[in-house]
Amino acid sequence: MGVVVTDIARADPKTVDGFAKIGVATAHEAQGRKGLLASYMRPIYRPAHIAGTAVTCEVAPGDNWMIHVAAEQCKPGDVLVVAPTSPCEDGYFGDLLAGSLMARGVRGLIIDAGVRDVADLTSMQFPVWSKAIFAQGTVKETLGNVNLPLVCAGQLINPGDLVIADDDGVVVVRRDDAPKVLEKSLKREAMEAEKREQLTAGVLGLDLYSMRERLAEKGLKYIKSSE
Amino acid sequence: MGVVVTDIARADPKTVDGFAKIGVATAHEAQGRKGLLASYMRPIYRPAHIAGTAVTCEVAPGDNWMIHVAAEQCKPGDVLVVAPTSPCEDGYFGDLLAGSLMARGVRGLIIDAGVRDVADLTSMQFPVWSKAIFAQGTVKETLGNVNLPLVCAGQLINPGDLVIADDDGVVVVRRDDAPKVLEKSLKREAMEAEKREQLTAGVLGLDLYSMRERLAEKGLKYIKSSE
Amino acid sequence: MGVVVTDIARADPKTVDGFAKIGVATAHEAQGRKGLLASYMRPIYRPAHIAGTAVTCEVAPGDNWMIHVAAEQCKPGDVLVVAPTSPCEDGYFGDLLAGSLMARGVRGLIIDAGVRDVADLTSMQFPVWSKAIFAQGTVKETLGNVNLPLVCAGQLINPGDLVIADDDGVVVVRRDDAPKVLEKSLKREAMEAEKREQLTAGVLGLDLYSMRERLAEKGLKYIKSSE
Amino acid sequence: MGVVVTDIARADPKTVDGFAKIGVATAHEAQGRKGLLASYMRPIYRPAHIAGTAVTCEVAPGDNWMIHVAAEQCKPGDVLVVAPTSPCEDGYFGDLLAGSLMARGVRGLIIDAGVRDVADLTSMQFPVWSKAIFAQGTVKETLGNVNLPLVCAGQLINPGDLVIADDDGVVVVRRDDAPKVLEKSLKREAMEAEKREQLTAGVLGLDLYSMRERLAEKGLKYIKSSE
Amino acid sequence: MGVVVTDIARADPKTVDGFAKIGVATAHEAQGRKGLLASYMRPIYRPAHIAGTAVTCEVAPGDNWMIHVAAEQCKPGDVLVVAPTSPCEDGYFGDLLAGSLMARGVRGLIIDAGVRDVADLTSMQFPVWSKAIFAQGTVKETLGNVNLPLVCAGQLINPGDLVIADDDGVVVVRRDDAPKVLEKSLKREAMEAEKREQLTAGVLGLDLYSMRERLAEKGLKYIKSSE
Amino acid sequence: MGVVVTDIARADPKTVDGFAKIGVATAHEAQGRKGLLASYMRPIYRPAHIAGTAVTCEVAPGDNWMIHVAAEQCKPGDVLVVAPTSPCEDGYFGDLLAGSLMARGVRGLIIDAGVRDVADLTSMQFPVWSKAIFAQGTVKETLGNVNLPLVCAGQLINPGDLVIADDDGVVVVRRDDAPKVLEKSLKREAMEAEKREQLTAGVLGLDLYSMRERLAEKGLKYIKSSE
Repeated sequence: MGVVVTDIARADPKTVDGFAKIGVATAHEAQGRKGLLASYMRPIYRPAHIAGTAVTCEVAPGDNWMIHVAAEQCKPGDVLVVAPTSPCEDGYFGDLLAGSLMARGVRGLIIDAGVRDVADLTSMQFPVWSKAIFAQGTVKETLGNVNLPLVCAGQLINPGDLVIADDDGVVVVRRDDAPKVLEKSLKREAMEAEKREQLTAGVLGLDLYSMRERLAEKGLKYIKSSE
Repeated sequence: MGVVVTDIARADPKTVDGFAKIGVATAHEAQGRKGLLASYMRPIYRPAHIAGTAVTCEVAPGDNWMIHVAAEQCKPGDVLVVAPTSPCEDGYFGDLLAGSLMARGVRGLIIDAGVRDVADLTSMQFPVWSKAIFAQGTVKETLGNVNLPLVCAGQLINPGDLVIADDDGVVVVRRDDAPKVLEKSLKREAMEAEKREQLTAGVLGLDLYSMRERLAEKGLKYIKSSE
Repeated sequence: MGVVVTDIARADPKTVDGFAKIGVATAHEAQGRKGLLASYMRPIYRPAHIAGTAVTCEVAPGDNWMIHVAAEQCKPGDVLVVAPTSPCEDGYFGDLLAGSLMARGVRGLIIDAGVRDVADLTSMQFPVWSKAIFAQGTVKETLGNVNLPLVCAGQLINPGDLVIADDDGVVVVRRDDAPKVLEKSLKREAMEAEKREQLTAGVLGLDLYSMRERLAEKGLKYIKSSE
Repeated sequence: MGVVVTDIARADPKTVDGFAKIGVATAHEAQGRKGLLASYMRPIYRPAHIAGTAVTCEVAPGDNWMIHVAAEQCKPGDVLVVAPTSPCEDGYFGDLLAGSLMARGVRGLIIDAGVRDVADLTSMQFPVWSKAIFAQGTVKETLGNVNLPLVCAGQLINPGDLVIADDDGVVVVRRDDAPKVLEKSLKREAMEAEKREQLTAGVLGLDLYSMRERLAEKGLKYIKSSE
Repeated sequence: MGVVVTDIARADPKTVDGFAKIGVATAHEAQGRKGLLASYMRPIYRPAHIAGTAVTCEVAPGDNWMIHVAAEQCKPGDVLVVAPTSPCEDGYFGDLLAGSLMARGVRGLIIDAGVRDVADLTSMQFPVWSKAIFAQGTVKETLGNVNLPLVCAGQLINPGDLVIADDDGVVVVRRDDAPKVLEKSLKREAMEAEKREQLTAGVLGLDLYSMRERLAEKGLKYIKSSE
Repeated sequence: MGVVVTDIARADPKTVDGFAKIGVATAHEAQGRKGLLASYMRPIYRPAHIAGTAVTCEVAPGDNWMIHVAAEQCKPGDVLVVAPTSPCEDGYFGDLLAGSLMARGVRGLIIDAGVRDVADLTSMQFPVWSKAIFAQGTVKETLGNVNLPLVCAGQLINPGDLVIADDDGVVVVRRDDAPKVLEKSLKREAMEAEKREQLTAGVLGLDLYSMRERLAEKGLKYIKSSE
């Protein structure tokens, strides 16, 4: 307990920035439907959309001391990822810490716990995805780890991994997978744009995706209500 | 498993459209306080308000195949109602399917599961009431039923039933009851308008509804704090 | 069961109004981190911020009769605080009651249960913090108490206590503690303004709060990833 | 509101008794994986196992009056099924009502709400599946319906339907489907007995169910950890 | 923060012991249906039944230091009541503390948080009602209060109040109300014994409680299924 | 998707067996308070206590196919650890699979989802820790991974890691840490035995752990109720 790794390797900034307009759902599909944090992780305001590199921070329940330690490790383009060692909804983070992170170029906070000052965070447009909103304060007594791998809302996150968050939730992409996932995401977006046009024009998914035959094979039956 | 009813009877369109400005709470009261879906069914954006006829769609957990089948059965004025056969929060529905449904004149989606692409759904102004927002994708492997009666968020919904949804939640009205419930809803609204005026002017509910006598009979006592 | 106290003592109006711009998190810290209602108490719209004196109202499950009784006890500057005798998410409160309370100068509602007509409540700008939004109606059959102490969302609230609510949640301050807590809150705000400036300018919390030495004493270690 | 149907048709007693040793999971599979009540319905003691015909009872939140009315409609071999009109965890049922139902030959209670006196219910060996255990009392003020179809814990239950409950939960089988489901359940049990023997003897499911080929087709790969 | 009251007044021991066989549901009814702790408070083993006088202990999240302080304040016949200042499921209490409390004649623990070593606590027959079972350890860093009034699982509990707990949950009775509630509880038990006999003999509640007339007045209708 | 690692390294069997009587709470403390799975993971019967080496199995929601694949990879002394790719409470596992695993010497199942046939699993004394008990069946359509690292109930588990489970929950110990954690656990147990004796004899924790001075330093005050 009580270790800070100071020289983490981060996903390539250009790749990271390539995800600026890629949605969480798209990236999640593009990497084979994995890496999604639990659905209870919700943005404190909407719309919100970020992509950045993870600085990870493990905290004790009801104790936000290590967030101050983690702040120093953050660089422009980072996303701070915080998880408590046992479940806790206390408000670990507020407008003062947000100001400090913004000064360092941090793009947002992912926290498997509570935050407070959400009206201020909204005016400041500092995006946060959290488990709870709760004014309960925290103490500064217990050490934790910064930039070790941690589990946040059900997913393993390594320092330097790519984290994308939007109104649908949060997804993590391994640092080394980021370029490949970006490529697949862009392809997927192009393909979806084409499909969107057709579907909006009234073409049915049944036809667009040629589903009718397989449905019939599986035994789907069309009947009248009197049958 | 695997049946699609193609010729369902729907509540009368004029009656349905009569509910365009009737709130869920009003319709629920007007039909004797029944038909409300569970309170966890929340709109993905607010305000939102729809009334339409139910096309019902039963899906397997983590499998949205049947939504494509159901889309073909939808007509202008319909509301798509989706329920999984066991509890699931996966994101069954996104912007592509919304585009398809909008092209068919569908007024909204009621789903006892998750949806994704909610930022897009909000820009498109396609209203959805769901149990969760979650980017988790689904597969297309298992058949289900379209336009059979189903239980969605605790309520039985028959195809063709009237479904009303607003910021307070979702209510179902039986197809045959719709005209009578509309009539009672309109009366209720007129009556409430009158009461609203008086209450806003400062008349107490105690007097407006003549409650004082019955309260006294039940034994209500007014005391001073020193007693 | 069935008592209304008619002459409660209220926190001093000037003190109460002094909290108009004090956030819940600040007041909570200023009074020693106590008095917060449970984190499931959420505003029906945001932003919202009130401070007022509590009129307390205990209701039976699914029965809102006593809210009408409580309305008569409300004065300008009050906040109505409602708690059921067993957990219930029914919609106890809607736009008619809100109109009535606004006519009496009530600043908002805190209810450990459900509300409805939230679209109307939003247009009327009558702020509500509740456990649920649910159109389910209630009956008027059972007596309860008005202006006795009650437990709401995990906190004891006495009639006349100061209640502050904002986007972070709800906090109660004992009537007699209000002046002292106001004084401490204002000091805290001043102090935070100063800190905010420095943090926003890039000074780290580690330095601003002189944390480095104590962290080292506790054994915090900075390492390289290769170690 | 306030209707009691006095002459419901019940599933055939011999068929019902045929389910005495059929587990919920087996019956659920035998009827095509449908009819399961929500997983929060738990037995108050274990082991417990019943099969009987449903007498349905709709109650108001916090009001158990109609359970007394329903008791009169119960016959030997019945199971009482109770659901509130809005979610409620109050203790609707205790040892007195259990004594009354046992005197009438009722086999158990399924209630989408709370019960109390569970120590006594356990000594009496009156089995109950409920959403909660809670000592909170109820009133007797509001009418409801007996022997109309209702939704209990997410499933539609008609009066006279077959209800099976064991340590795994509760399943409903439509009255008319009961004979066919019994037949399929018995076949399934026989088949499982055979498989159980082989699996217990060490034969792998992969071989017993000939899964290897299909797994390979889908692309399953066996690798060494060094790969 | 950080106060221990050393000379609390306790409910009279004879009265307390009079509740040894009074169930929680009975006491709760006898005092007018109030004082019940939330239904999530469950015994770690069943059956279990205690009545004793409250020693109250407020703890910080994840910090069990004050339980050691509270132990010294406990006398034979006491029940230790623990609540955290913000929600926490950590395992505050295990077999060592139980041994210490048993040595002091403490009858059980009520804790709105987690406990651990439940297999040992079961062998020792030290009864506990808790919100969770969780092996997560706690620290000893932060002060709290002993023997001040606190809110535990939704109820205000004063030091010295009577606490009764059984398989149905936990109820608090104010110290001064205890004798009156005992008297009413005993009457209630006598009355119920009589009713139990009749109900078990087959007399319906409808007749025993003379409900038929009032049901008819409210409009209850008995119909045939063909109607 | 769809990989099975066939030659995982396992924690040393002697070390693993050394944990046979070490409780989860003890092991968790001994390794620095980490590695605990979420508190919702509960044993299906009590008491139960196992220690074994993890075979990990990732499954699709509502699809238990991969458990058959994983069974083949299990050896005597293993514990099967199953996690779905999105939250699911379906009953993935029943008595047939339990028979198969017992034939292979598997010591138990840890599953972040549902199980069924719990009455049979109890008679067979095959211990399971799960998130839910639910009779809902699963399909066999989608591949997953066996013996890759996975996150189960909030903790990263690598194949071959040591898993300990008892009535308090489940903890994972890294394969390489197992010997050291065993040593510390045994020391801890010895130390606790000594303390247990003293505490049971009536020595207060305040004295046994010499807490009085530090409490006084922090400012703890002992007062009379009249103060």
